[in-house]
Amino acid sequence: MFSINETHRFFAPQLDVPLRLLLGPGPSNAHPRVLQAIAMPQIGHLDPAFIQVMNDIQEMLRYAWQTDNPFTLPVSGTGSAAMEAAIANLVEPGDVVLIGVIGYFGERLVEMASRYGADVRRMDKPWGEVFTLDEISAGVETHRPTLLGLVHAETSTGALQPMDGVGDLCRAHDCLLLIDTVTSLGTTPIFLDEWGVDAAYSCSQKGLSCPPGASPFTLGERALAKLHGRRTKVANWYLDMSILSQYWDGKTRSYHHTAPINSMYAVREGLRLVVEEGLAERWARHQANAQRLWDGLTELDLACHVNDPAHRIPALTTVRVPAGIDARDTAVRLLNDYNIEIAGGFGPLAGKVWRIGLMGHNSRPENVTLLLAALKEILGR
Amino acid sequence: MFSINETHRFFAPQLDVPLRLLLGPGPSNAHPRVLQAIAMPQIGHLDPAFIQVMNDIQEMLRYAWQTDNPFTLPVSGTGSAAMEAAIANLVEPGDVVLIGVIGYFGERLVEMASRYGADVRRMDKPWGEVFTLDEISAGVETHRPTLLGLVHAETSTGALQPMDGVGDLCRAHDCLLLIDTVTSLGTTPIFLDEWGVDAAYSCSQKGLSCPPGASPFTLGERALAKLHGRRTKVANWYLDMSILSQYWDGKTRSYHHTAPINSMYAVREGLRLVVEEGLAERWARHQANAQRLWDGLTELDLACHVNDPAHRIPALTTVRVPAGIDARDTAVRLLNDYNIEIAGGFGPLAGKVWRIGLMGHNSRPENVTLLLAALKEILGR
Repeated sequence: MFSINETHRFFAPQLDVPLRLLLGPGPSNAHPRVLQAIAMPQIGHLDPAFIQVMNDIQEMLRYAWQTDNPFTLPVSGTGSAAMEAAIANLVEPGDVVLIGVIGYFGERLVEMASRYGADVRRMDKPWGEVFTLDEISAGVETHRPTLLGLVHAETSTGALQPMDGVGDLCRAHDCLLLIDTVTSLGTTPIFLDEWGVDAAYSCSQKGLSCPPGASPFTLGERALAKLHGRRTKVANWYLDMSILSQYWDGKTRSYHHTAPINSMYAVREGLRLVVEEGLAERWARHQANAQRLWDGLTELDLACHVNDPAHRIPALTTVRVPAGIDARDTAVRLLNDYNIEIAGGFGPLAGKVWRIGLMGHNSRPENVTLLLAALKEILGR
Repeated sequence: MFSINETHRFFAPQLDVPLRLLLGPGPSNAHPRVLQAIAMPQIGHLDPAFIQVMNDIQEMLRYAWQTDNPFTLPVSGTGSAAMEAAIANLVEPGDVVLIGVIGYFGERLVEMASRYGADVRRMDKPWGEVFTLDEISAGVETHRPTLLGLVHAETSTGALQPMDGVGDLCRAHDCLLLIDTVTSLGTTPIFLDEWGVDAAYSCSQKGLSCPPGASPFTLGERALAKLHGRRTKVANWYLDMSILSQYWDGKTRSYHHTAPINSMYAVREGLRLVVEEGLAERWARHQANAQRLWDGLTELDLACHVNDPAHRIPALTTVRVPAGIDARDTAVRLLNDYNIEIAGGFGPLAGKVWRIGLMGHNSRPENVTLLLAALKEILGR
């Protein structure tokens, strides 16, 4: 036995975190009931009582996404893991995959699909714009992909991609439709089944008002057919839905990996809040508070980066930084002087926009009022 | 806009979980202080206050693992994600990888390495045994691997692999040494640097007494040289340490994916408990409570599956199921009548052993006394 090295025996003080109002692109503040749920005592991941927790989550997720998909579950990681699960399971080497890139998360889909060996084609729009159905149709006609990936709510730009007609188009071309709903689930109208979406993913720390850690994922029949007909194994063991499904299928519940138990408690509570409020009311609340923000920004002579209000994500507004203002300085002052977190832009929008989130529990009139008043003070308007 | 489908609007009741004593192979019960920490309000993953949380975790993890590795951090998933991170980052297609298989988790390393394109070679031992240094040496001489993967504490069998001399052997053959410490971190003597280990991973829900969700991972200099000298991109985006390192390096902190904030709070608190107790005391406590269990089992005329006590994991004991006893029935009665979770065996040990964990916070004399008394009642001994 060696002697113990005490060099790194660091006696950290008790955890003490600043009380931030998280009005950036996520994480958003967890609802107090969610924080109570996450602190409940653990049970085993194969305990019959946990199986009930899993069932509850699955059913409520179907409601939140408006889908009947039996294969609907949270992935054991944050939103990026759920995104990777979609690509890893639905893409085989050599598959032609078409990605609509309207911002960073489209770029990331391109990067992931390329790592899984896809023949990736892309359609691009300037950051802040969305595709028309004609543009998407032309892309699908040209590339004949096996999978079309679109970002429904592009968190890097604040743009909301209309989905009308895209599902029919994909079905007509025998192409799977995958959408990123990371910032839209629980905040913005989504009708996965009516839209003909075959696969989708999201996260827990935005519209569901949970800590990050377990991330919604769903596959419809056509996506499952692709998964079960693969010629190759999924190149990612942790996220392999062909084996993980045996844990979540409601029958075998056989061990794959240990689920993040307490994060599942949190997601369950976040979904209970969605169910209690009702989707219509929840979507209307997000829209109303977004409108309140947009109106207030106009009064401060600040402009939204996404011109058409119908193409703005109600839960995430990008605001143009006026000439002469340092975007980062404003965000730092909001954080240090008001305990409010907002974010800047990045990539082509670096220094050009702020990103303001009103997500889930945080989409409340008083938060809009506070943020606008703080911005007014800082900017001297 | 479509009309909202209310079919899946399931009003789940308030979360109410049974109060289990988790004495299986994990998860183990979280310490109450950890459950308080996990329920603290969120801050952003780029908040300066969170960077301090990250630094604290990294430093305390170095202590727990006895390593100076700067690259020491928790992966944003459960233990299997940390295992996959090791393989994904250190294996390139065509690499000869040698895995020592003494149970299920060695099998899983074989499976993962094969998915990442390795030329996988294996050494096998019956479940419950460990390799001698001579056997490992012969394997390395024969296969000349670029990476040797060993399971330090094989959770499926209860066997503890001695590590003396393995690091020197690997260095002499220019081979990286990767070890699985999922069940040994925080419970059993580990000296990563003294052992010459190049990469290791663990989990949060066993020796660290946290919920599952963020999983320790470390790379030494030689492993980092392999990572930075790769000819190919890491085939897993979420776990790509070449980009994730820019978030954790203490300097750039650039965004890769949203970290599971509250799970990090939990890991920080679990590590504080390790630091406060001290490794020597913690390891001695686990050994003493294991001995108490082994003595009590002997009194009940029950035998440990791993013969040599020096090769038993103090935190996880496999017990042979006596003839005429249904292993599952006993576990179900413990769960239903005593709220105690233990596990059975699987694979070659299915129906043949029980697996009893005394991990972290749960390694306490009163838990041993209760379990032995309950077993005595159930088995009528």
